[in-house]
Amino acid sequence: ANIVLLPGDGIGPEIVLQGQRVLEAIATKFNHQFTFQSCLIGGIAIDQTGDPLPQPTIDACLASDAVLLGAVGGPKWDDPSAKTRPEFGLLKIRKELGLFANLRPIQTFPELVGASPLRREIVEGTDILFFRELTGGIYFGPSGREVVDGVEHAMATMVYSVPEVERVVRLAAEAARGRKGHLTSVDKANVLEPSRLWRQVAERVVREEFPDLKYDVVLVDSMAMHLISRPKDFDVVVTGNMFGDILTDEASMLPGSLGMLPSASIGSDGPGLYEPIHGSAPDIAGQDLANPLATILACAMLLRHSLQLEDEALAIESTVRKVLAAGLRTRDIAAGGPAIGTVAMGDEVLKLLV
Amino acid sequence: ANIVLLPGDGIGPEIVLQGQRVLEAIATKFNHQFTFQSCLIGGIAIDQTGDPLPQPTIDACLASDAVLLGAVGGPKWDDPSAKTRPEFGLLKIRKELGLFANLRPIQTFPELVGASPLRREIVEGTDILFFRELTGGIYFGPSGREVVDGVEHAMATMVYSVPEVERVVRLAAEAARGRKGHLTSVDKANVLEPSRLWRQVAERVVREEFPDLKYDVVLVDSMAMHLISRPKDFDVVVTGNMFGDILTDEASMLPGSLGMLPSASIGSDGPGLYEPIHGSAPDIAGQDLANPLATILACAMLLRHSLQLEDEALAIESTVRKVLAAGLRTRDIAAGGPAIGTVAMGDEVLKLLV
Ligand SMILES: CC(C)[C@H](C(=O)O)[C@@H](O)C(=O)O
Ligand SMILES: CC(C)[C@H](C(=O)O)[C@@H](O)C(=O)O
Repeated sequence: ANIVLLPGDGIGPEIVLQGQRVLEAIATKFNHQFTFQSCLIGGIAIDQTGDPLPQPTIDACLASDAVLLGAVGGPKWDDPSAKTRPEFGLLKIRKELGLFANLRPIQTFPELVGASPLRREIVEGTDILFFRELTGGIYFGPSGREVVDGVEHAMATMVYSVPEVERVVRLAAEAARGRKGHLTSVDKANVLEPSRLWRQVAERVVREEFPDLKYDVVLVDSMAMHLISRPKDFDVVVTGNMFGDILTDEASMLPGSLGMLPSASIGSDGPGLYEPIHGSAPDIAGQDLANPLATILACAMLLRHSLQLEDEALAIESTVRKVLAAGLRTRDIAAGGPAIGTVAMGDEVLKLLV
Repeated sequence: ANIVLLPGDGIGPEIVLQGQRVLEAIATKFNHQFTFQSCLIGGIAIDQTGDPLPQPTIDACLASDAVLLGAVGGPKWDDPSAKTRPEFGLLKIRKELGLFANLRPIQTFPELVGASPLRREIVEGTDILFFRELTGGIYFGPSGREVVDGVEHAMATMVYSVPEVERVVRLAAEAARGRKGHLTSVDKANVLEPSRLWRQVAERVVREEFPDLKYDVVLVDSMAMHLISRPKDFDVVVTGNMFGDILTDEASMLPGSLGMLPSASIGSDGPGLYEPIHGSAPDIAGQDLANPLATILACAMLLRHSLQLEDEALAIESTVRKVLAAGLRTRDIAAGGPAIGTVAMGDEVLKLLV
């Protein structure tokens, strides 16, 4: 398989390197051939080419089987008057690769749950898989500015079409079948027309194609409450782009260990994009302090969703659990106790993997 | 002063009655004249007139000094194919009265913080005042459906104009001046054009008119995280309608006592609208189980913001703290311990107030 690496900015290169090492070890252990090719994205791409997503990167990704991304952005590229920004590279690659579904598993690790801001009895055992629609909604609808009677207005349009809702709901419903069989769709149908369409389509897809699922519908404001007060009540959650952006970030606080959470963005065919959900952390970049485990867990998702290598994915996931059980911690999850560096954490995963 | 009561549905009538009793006691104690007039809104208004906000209600509110609302909605009016819904009454009254700012104080009560889903050391001492823009944004922009090449699309438009942002930011900034002097504006300026306008205007208003404030800007997805991980770092938070809907509901979970939280919706002149943030709780309606304290605290906001009676507002707020300190609890905040009913809780407030 042909894997494109997009290290990006800040700690991106360090953590992607550890991901690559783990993928190489998997290839050896399970007898696969993985080839790697590194391309530019984000701030470093702006610096070198003026474009946060240069065409050669797009071409390489389109020709690949899967893409592993580090992180993009940093204060260097934050000037609001700049012509372009690292994040545009992220939005554009989603669109170019047709990555309409963003999968974000939110799981608690028993060893780390003491660091959750939530009380243990509320959060322990939480296991949610979010499906966020990623190429539609208000992120990609018509937008602009207009002066009406001398007053400046700015607008952005939330648009959803029937097939856009169908395909992401189908993916989420299929995933629910392989889990606890419970699907929750989140919208704001009491106010927004696209949410009313979303609700109609989701209900039809589930009724006609997934009648076996337990299905419910929650308003986005209520969901923001439930995620804190009763996170264990959810299994698979599907929602639109904007609501998913907010709710998945809210949910990412629950386990108390942002540095452990991966994400996958997939389309109907073509390569998927895999990444840790944390940012580029410019303050600790290049210091061997970053936690590579979210990226390593993103590699497991890459093996599972783009290469259909379930055993290999499980091998990584169980190794990460072993590493935690052995008490190995990078600084972010050490709760003030002894910590090891980025490379050393990669070493430990490799030791226990083979 | 002339106060309109809008009891609404479910527990609305019970809790508004306790609010009215407290306002009457304040009038006696401080020598004011309050007259009360009860009008229809929500499901009961649909049942009696076919309209969730009948014109006589609008007229009475417009002629009043302040409006006290209970809650609207319930399963009886939830039919998705219904021509109208109780919530439309809520959206319409905001627009009709020009209530462009929704104020939501989020405070923890020391006696109740053990019921918070967050760990005590994270949440105790949280004291945030949210300003949510309430008559603009995606709630009120152009929306509809369209069939393009045989595919049905639905859309809604988020629109903000310069004056809409200015006025709510000014109110929030003034409030910050009277508190800890810290204002946070929340947007999604890395993706949405209306958020870019929001950010520009907010920064200009603060720079030119409130240079004394500590001011910062946070993305909505990050804010959803910070509210859980470090809620004590915020003082006054201002944001748009949709983001405010989600973030204030998320924040309402922090104190662990939804039944204690009031809200105020105000415009530039004319009456303000005051209400508890909890819903109509149809499951316990008419059983003398509802907690009237959020509504009673909403009455304090009414006295402060619409009638400029600060001492009277403080009298109510300190009485509610005394009632809690005395161990008096309705069922929702009793943590399984002994509880009193809605009317008895009103009685206790009256006893300690006079
Ligand atoms: C950086 C930004 C454009 C992006 C988004 O809003 O989608 C990020 O928040 C994310 O969730 O991946
Ligand atoms: C009922 C609904 C229309 C309303 C809103 O979204 O504004 C509610 O959630 C609120 O926050 O008051």
